[in-house]
Amino acid sequence: MNNCFGCNTCKSADKPLEEFIANLPMETSHHRVESQSTKCNFGLQGVCCRLCSNGPCRITPDAPRGICGANADTIVTRNFLRAVAAGSGCYIHVVENTALNLKNTALVKGKIKGERALERLCSIFGITSGDLYEKAEKVADAVLSDLYKPEYVKMELVEKLSYKPRFDKWKELGILPGGAKSEVFKGVVKCSTNLNSDPVDMLIDCLRLGISTGLYGLVLTNLLNDVLLGEPELRTAPVGLRVIDPDYINIMITGHQHSMFVDLQERLIQPDAVAKAKAAGAKGFKLVGCTCVGQDLQLRGSHYKEVFNGHAGNNYTSEAILATGAIDAVLSEFNCTLPGIEPICEELKIKQICLDSVAKKANAEIMEFDFAKREQQSNEIIDKIVGAYILRRGKINVDFSNADKEWKPLIDMLVGAYNSIHQDVNLNLMPEHGNDHTLTGVSEVSLKEFLGGKWKPLIDLIVAGDIKGIAGVVGCSNLTAGGHDVLSVELTKELIAKDILVLTAGCSSGGIENCGLMTPEAAKLAGPKLRAVCEKLGIPPVLNFGPCLAIGRLEIVATEIAEELGVDLPQLPLVLSAAQWLEEQALADGAYGLALGLPLHLGLPPFITGSKVAVKVLTEDMKQLTGGQVIINPDAKESADILEKIIMEKRSALNI
Amino acid sequence: MNNCFGCNTCKSADKPLEEFIANLPMETSHHRVESQSTKCNFGLQGVCCRLCSNGPCRITPDAPRGICGANADTIVTRNFLRAVAAGSGCYIHVVENTALNLKNTALVKGKIKGERALERLCSIFGITSGDLYEKAEKVADAVLSDLYKPEYVKMELVEKLSYKPRFDKWKELGILPGGAKSEVFKGVVKCSTNLNSDPVDMLIDCLRLGISTGLYGLVLTNLLNDVLLGEPELRTAPVGLRVIDPDYINIMITGHQHSMFVDLQERLIQPDAVAKAKAAGAKGFKLVGCTCVGQDLQLRGSHYKEVFNGHAGNNYTSEAILATGAIDAVLSEFNCTLPGIEPICEELKIKQICLDSVAKKANAEIMEFDFAKREQQSNEIIDKIVGAYILRRGKINVDFSNADKEWKPLIDMLVGAYNSIHQDVNLNLMPEHGNDHTLTGVSEVSLKEFLGGKWKPLIDLIVAGDIKGIAGVVGCSNLTAGGHDVLSVELTKELIAKDILVLTAGCSSGGIENCGLMTPEAAKLAGPKLRAVCEKLGIPPVLNFGPCLAIGRLEIVATEIAEELGVDLPQLPLVLSAAQWLEEQALADGAYGLALGLPLHLGLPPFITGSKVAVKVLTEDMKQLTGGQVIINPDAKESADILEKIIMEKRSALNI
Repeated sequence: MNNCFGCNTCKSADKPLEEFIANLPMETSHHRVESQSTKCNFGLQGVCCRLCSNGPCRITPDAPRGICGANADTIVTRNFLRAVAAGSGCYIHVVENTALNLKNTALVKGKIKGERALERLCSIFGITSGDLYEKAEKVADAVLSDLYKPEYVKMELVEKLSYKPRFDKWKELGILPGGAKSEVFKGVVKCSTNLNSDPVDMLIDCLRLGISTGLYGLVLTNLLNDVLLGEPELRTAPVGLRVIDPDYINIMITGHQHSMFVDLQERLIQPDAVAKAKAAGAKGFKLVGCTCVGQDLQLRGSHYKEVFNGHAGNNYTSEAILATGAIDAVLSEFNCTLPGIEPICEELKIKQICLDSVAKKANAEIMEFDFAKREQQSNEIIDKIVGAYILRRGKINVDFSNADKEWKPLIDMLVGAYNSIHQDVNLNLMPEHGNDHTLTGVSEVSLKEFLGGKWKPLIDLIVAGDIKGIAGVVGCSNLTAGGHDVLSVELTKELIAKDILVLTAGCSSGGIENCGLMTPEAAKLAGPKLRAVCEKLGIPPVLNFGPCLAIGRLEIVATEIAEELGVDLPQLPLVLSAAQWLEEQALADGAYGLALGLPLHLGLPPFITGSKVAVKVLTEDMKQLTGGQVIINPDAKESADILEKIIMEKRSALNI
Repeated sequence: MNNCFGCNTCKSADKPLEEFIANLPMETSHHRVESQSTKCNFGLQGVCCRLCSNGPCRITPDAPRGICGANADTIVTRNFLRAVAAGSGCYIHVVENTALNLKNTALVKGKIKGERALERLCSIFGITSGDLYEKAEKVADAVLSDLYKPEYVKMELVEKLSYKPRFDKWKELGILPGGAKSEVFKGVVKCSTNLNSDPVDMLIDCLRLGISTGLYGLVLTNLLNDVLLGEPELRTAPVGLRVIDPDYINIMITGHQHSMFVDLQERLIQPDAVAKAKAAGAKGFKLVGCTCVGQDLQLRGSHYKEVFNGHAGNNYTSEAILATGAIDAVLSEFNCTLPGIEPICEELKIKQICLDSVAKKANAEIMEFDFAKREQQSNEIIDKIVGAYILRRGKINVDFSNADKEWKPLIDMLVGAYNSIHQDVNLNLMPEHGNDHTLTGVSEVSLKEFLGGKWKPLIDLIVAGDIKGIAGVVGCSNLTAGGHDVLSVELTKELIAKDILVLTAGCSSGGIENCGLMTPEAAKLAGPKLRAVCEKLGIPPVLNFGPCLAIGRLEIVATEIAEELGVDLPQLPLVLSAAQWLEEQALADGAYGLALGLPLHLGLPPFITGSKVAVKVLTEDMKQLTGGQVIINPDAKESADILEKIIMEKRSALNI
């Protein structure tokens, strides 16, 4: 283990979790905040360049250019474009695999859980002929074909997926994306050494990447998953460490690619699989949600009640989830799977299996998901996990009394061996963490249905001022904007207190839900008008759309409302905050938000403050380009005030 | 201008150039080495991570993990994989555009200058039917089709382009690349936050990227260019600043995409274009070579004697070339176009036009190359450059005496206006720089022809020990491995003194040729045996294959020799040195060298020394994997000794 164990841990908005982590006998990321607290200012400002062997070069007043001649604006925007391109690549990887899984499912005439969702996609794409499977294949092919177009060929679904005023604006600005994978490729090339040096050109490219990220990575991934995995349905569910039931073999899932679990999550509850778990001394298998794939399973939890025990927490809760000792295996397939789980899994003998080589953890086994071999892979995974369970906390408790006599000595020996090598791990559960009635299953469809199949009730509440406006508090969780989920949770509290309805998506949701803001009782934290609305409807003032991918669902809600009002998105009393954005993916999401023309609050700035041009373009000039703007403020109250002011200006411009 | 002007400049192997730069009235990259001489050790060692908002994190003995838990091995290899992926992307971008230009040329039945080269490609690809244009289209399509395959579909040309023992080894290691663009995409995703953390897995991916970079970016780009632009032919040519003739309108070209100049380089010497130049007071147009596209034009110079005046210098000579004052325009289409040229162009009113948006310079005009509009674009470029020439040093000297009387006042006014706004720039020429008889035009084909159509004479010389072995001194020029071209030139001198024949490709060539090592008289610097060979054949001891792309040509030479000897590449007495590697592209080239199983010397380490695993895999374990190894040594003499020792070991193993 890392020698920082013993450091103070960082704050968390989730006080029971904070205390739990502070008392753990092992190091987590919360401990390492202190040992990494001395930050490099060149890095923070983005004015360090290490693209070439003459470097690293750093910009100072006495050295305003790197050796090659690149100035702060070039260095900052090159670094930034590379980050946005990588972030976009992550989402495009996810939607590509999701589309492939849908296509392969269609080809083998597998289970289509969301027929209505498929019809919806067909309607958007203009697909009218074919049976269920042919339609699913056509949908998948349309997505894959767009992803693989060259950069100089525009993607065809962009217009079909976009709100017309936005599409027209993007066309006018020349930022309609070519093939999404080639856009990522081009972005990475462009910011290489001695290539592009034009900061504005590179920032404009970020918008283009934002559009492909948003429409494909954020919107389509959800809608494709709806077809494969079933549509979200409103329900309440338990959240937090309490969802871990030590009587079961517990599998923590992390990542973003829910469609890779289609077979396994059915398999885990079939009698012969359960029998294996029982033979090892457990009641069966349970999936424990972590990060976004956990949020996605929670979102669709009404379809997976038996196998899914609930969402335990976000990325920076993952180490704590493992440290309970009651998790027997981690199945990961993408970020946000912290390397910090590796030593904990090592120490607690937790089996790690990675289903996607891009997400291979150093000490994990790789079993690249292969649709054709999915059934065999599910069985292998089950056997490996049962094996891990036996080694760490199993008891062989099968009744062998009826076994053939000649097998008896062998069985006795095996049982003896099992029981001697297995070592009980200390369980360190915290059953009271989280809550048991978080509202989940919110999507653009389920919410509209809840409202009677139309947005008018919500619009009326907004027009009447009962709901002042809407804020999307989205994206990641980090540890440095006040601590774990501190800014996200405090900002959310400030916003609802101002009668602003909060919609969430991403790891931020995991923190906010564990802090109880998504239970109906949280209505009492809202301002009097929003509280009244919530209490009347029996809903919390914060609605959880699930994984960060579901930022695309928020956009659909916003677009449908804008359409009904006959206005463009930037006119809506709607703001975004990625208060505790963490990863490059969040920057690509943010670029989508800017392309949509929305105000985007960040608690911590990206590493761009060393460039006056970058700061000006993102925080000021963007208003003229797309209508969007970046607002950077680490203080929850100030940020809420700024966002409220913007909402009031938008209301005023709409004469409401 | 940068306020570092007045600093000491760095050393250069090219002493006249060093003196010229030291006395310039403007700042260049050579001046900025001093102001950027304080290097960050975290960056140098690769143990700084700024992928997420919790960062930047830096690894120290007291903080062996970043906040997320990533250790030095993970951080270093993530950074390294990202660099290699970006570098690969650069070359793949180049080969994609080259293939597109060939395809478009075929579709319009344009000029195919290298029919023999086309037949050669058809033979490699197995294309047997069709006329010249159909064949060219099929060749281009085969390349493009491979580049766009998904990562999970192997490229088809790999086996056709590879030496069988190598192909088999790559297959055994599981490193045959899928679609080259998707491999880059995957590489970038893989090294994102909280995804892959396995250092060995990421280093293996670098090999895969190396193979696609090498076979497509390095081998095929040359062969496609041979079809479009004509094959290299041996000849001597002038090099250095002397190639700039101030009586002409001089256009410096920089980049890597020669096929974008097909139309323009013909157009510049047509009578009506020359008339425009003459009307502005010049004798006509001349292209002045800089960086790799200049090397490529030099290589094929026998086809472009009228328009091309010679190669002036490499990347870090570009600012000096412009500072002569006699360059009127820069046409750039890729790296290695230093941002440092921007303030010089501004000051000297040099027109900058970029032909590829990935290479847009901050203060340049962008005119994205469009094959369909190439003729119109050539005309526009000519007009813009003539305009620039007039503004900076033109004299309107057309005889208007026969003009219609009514036009006379208008013409007089225009002439007056022109002559009043133009400002003569100071010419600062150095006619004695470089030399006038560098051997150029060396390719795998022209060299073999020179040897009588077979490699046997060269093999016999190697077997006899007259040539002890071959060293490829390839890649970039940087300013920090002893100074500009210092290590490359000194190492080359050491190697030839040991009777090791040196083959070059890349910006290293530009420095080595300006220092005279590619003139036949350089034979006297070689060891007695190599000197005798050179003097007998009338060749220099250093043979210039041209641009860095031509590293692929060196590989063909090596493969053909290995094939003739019936051995695998790692058995040959052949070493590589990217002594002064600069860019991420060089790292991708290097990965190709390692995949080929060759020893690869670097003067400066990549930013990997903070990871014991990365250092061990690249410098030691690689020998078992592919036969390759990285050798890092900044001293020319020591490096030459090490490389000689390896050559002697290989000779010994071959019993020669």
